[in-house]
Amino acid sequence: MTRAGPKASRFARRLLAEWKRLDLPQSAERVVVAVSGGADSTALMLALNELIVTHKLSASIVIAHLNHGLRGEAGEEDACWVTELAADLGFECVLGQTDVKAQAEEYRDNLEQAARRTRYGFLLETAKNSEARIVLTAHTLDDQAETVLLRLVRGSGAEGLSGIEAVRALDEQSNVLLARPLLNWASRAETENYCREREVAFKSDAMNEDERFARVRVRRRLIPLLKTFNPRIVEALDRTARLLREDAEALNEAAQKLLTEASEGDPSAGASLRVDVLARARASLGRRALRRWIALARGDLLRLELVHLLAVEGLLKGERGGRVVLLPGGDKVSRRRGRLYYHKKVEKGVEAV
Amino acid sequence: MTRAGPKASRFARRLLAEWKRLDLPQSAERVVVAVSGGADSTALMLALNELIVTHKLSASIVIAHLNHGLRGEAGEEDACWVTELAADLGFECVLGQTDVKAQAEEYRDNLEQAARRTRYGFLLETAKNSEARIVLTAHTLDDQAETVLLRLVRGSGAEGLSGIEAVRALDEQSNVLLARPLLNWASRAETENYCREREVAFKSDAMNEDERFARVRVRRRLIPLLKTFNPRIVEALDRTARLLREDAEALNEAAQKLLTEASEGDPSAGASLRVDVLARARASLGRRALRRWIALARGDLLRLELVHLLAVEGLLKGERGGRVVLLPGGDKVSRRRGRLYYHKKVEKGVEAV
Repeated sequence: MTRAGPKASRFARRLLAEWKRLDLPQSAERVVVAVSGGADSTALMLALNELIVTHKLSASIVIAHLNHGLRGEAGEEDACWVTELAADLGFECVLGQTDVKAQAEEYRDNLEQAARRTRYGFLLETAKNSEARIVLTAHTLDDQAETVLLRLVRGSGAEGLSGIEAVRALDEQSNVLLARPLLNWASRAETENYCREREVAFKSDAMNEDERFARVRVRRRLIPLLKTFNPRIVEALDRTARLLREDAEALNEAAQKLLTEASEGDPSAGASLRVDVLARARASLGRRALRRWIALARGDLLRLELVHLLAVEGLLKGERGGRVVLLPGGDKVSRRRGRLYYHKKVEKGVEAV
Repeated sequence: MTRAGPKASRFARRLLAEWKRLDLPQSAERVVVAVSGGADSTALMLALNELIVTHKLSASIVIAHLNHGLRGEAGEEDACWVTELAADLGFECVLGQTDVKAQAEEYRDNLEQAARRTRYGFLLETAKNSEARIVLTAHTLDDQAETVLLRLVRGSGAEGLSGIEAVRALDEQSNVLLARPLLNWASRAETENYCREREVAFKSDAMNEDERFARVRVRRRLIPLLKTFNPRIVEALDRTARLLREDAEALNEAAQKLLTEASEGDPSAGASLRVDVLARARASLGRRALRRWIALARGDLLRLELVHLLAVEGLLKGERGGRVVLLPGGDKVSRRRGRLYYHKKVEKGVEAV
């Protein structure tokens, strides 16, 4: 079939179209690409190679592969395989090694969360070390559909059901971008086909077969059942995610205005808020404004659940002040004389906001 | 267990609490109740009886039962059973008879759609004949979860995933309210238990067992699988539906403002819209404004899909006028000199808007 050469394959051309649509730089950039060795990331690596060879893209690619330390020799074989393929394609390769099980125990995370946190930490570090401003992951339409379903079974709202973003900041501090140039158009079947076209035998990760992971059960049981209702379920879930992402963006913009109004023009960390302004707003705006306000004062939204927001919302009801809501971690929100106040947990010798 | 008598059962008390929360009138109203004879509607009928007997509610109840003509003798048996139970409880009963299969063929609907349309038509007619301003159906939390999932497999946005509303107008012309006083709190297991407490052997509808219906497959296959991810999936889906309904309400309010602005203060049927105002709005607001505008001019949104809206949205892009989008049914939207115009399909001798 089509190969790297003067004319790029259809897969590579679609990658290039999305690259432009996402406004990613087309020349002289260092770009870190997360590659597990599975079909998706292998296809991404191969297509980038095609685009560079055919002079459609000029980027200095750094392949980043993390061995999660969960699969013994198989993990080491994958690392070797990725290193060799990267070398064949003329790409730099950075290998990382971690012990996700130990990490999970240390942070009391489940394995999936620990693997995710460690992986993104490794990608950020690799980006910094290689002075790259862009990190790519090979998430596909199928990953998007799985994410939407995983959020749905938890009863998420619009933000959760928006799924994965095609471009976002990798973390809050650095200015490294995390981009997913396959997310909006490539299915897993397409990445597999493209690898076969290129005659590269991608690896299959045993973690992708382990039904102890909810994501694997979504892929292997839930999506096949949903296909009996709608054969194009993956595309349908992608459409839902897009629509809800647009909704969430519009609502968050309106919530920011509300927050500015409730704080009388100063929506900074620790500003107090007017109860009357929030109380007359619609629930979906008021709740989002409160969430932003808490995120600003607290620094993050870790472990903040809908129940906590509803409790803070409860402070807006009625006329009575002097009430307090405790947030996870020890911070508090109080209502006093028609205003909401944010109180940081008082540590030894540390002043409250 | 608890029975009708001076103290109402827990089920009846929860119904009363919801009745108040939904702001339904507590006295001297004629109320039509749709009863199939299944556990949900039988429980609703029994609980209303309890509330009336215990003087918590004063309403004149009219039971409405429609025989869909799909199940031969079994359908007739159900009609008799409902009539007898209604009589035992001192309620009036109206029986309807239809041939849903013939209806489906006439309107080229599927059976589910035809059954739904015929049922709501019968309820409206019964409400009018009995001069009732309220019609109740016995939809439960489980129906809500099933509806959300049925919408999800079609790739719906926030409005679709909002599921069933607890109170809405029964139709656009009359001022009859359709209320679902079990929707927000009762599960199917609870309606079944309550029927057993009252020692009433509800009927099971064979249509509820027929896996040719998507809803039945959702209930019997999809929800059990989702329970392996989250045992409280029904409540989770209900939470999602509530959050998205609040979002949709806020967005539709903002879209109405946008429509007023785009029509320069006159958002009536057939008003032209300023392209520049719509083009600078967020997609989620612009699309909703266009949908409202089309609904106003067209009278309904029948067969209007996302693709049609996206085509109309396409008219907002670029500088060029003179473009036209054809809507299902023959109406058209055109762009000319920086404005969108709605053109009704020209019937013989009928003027376009």
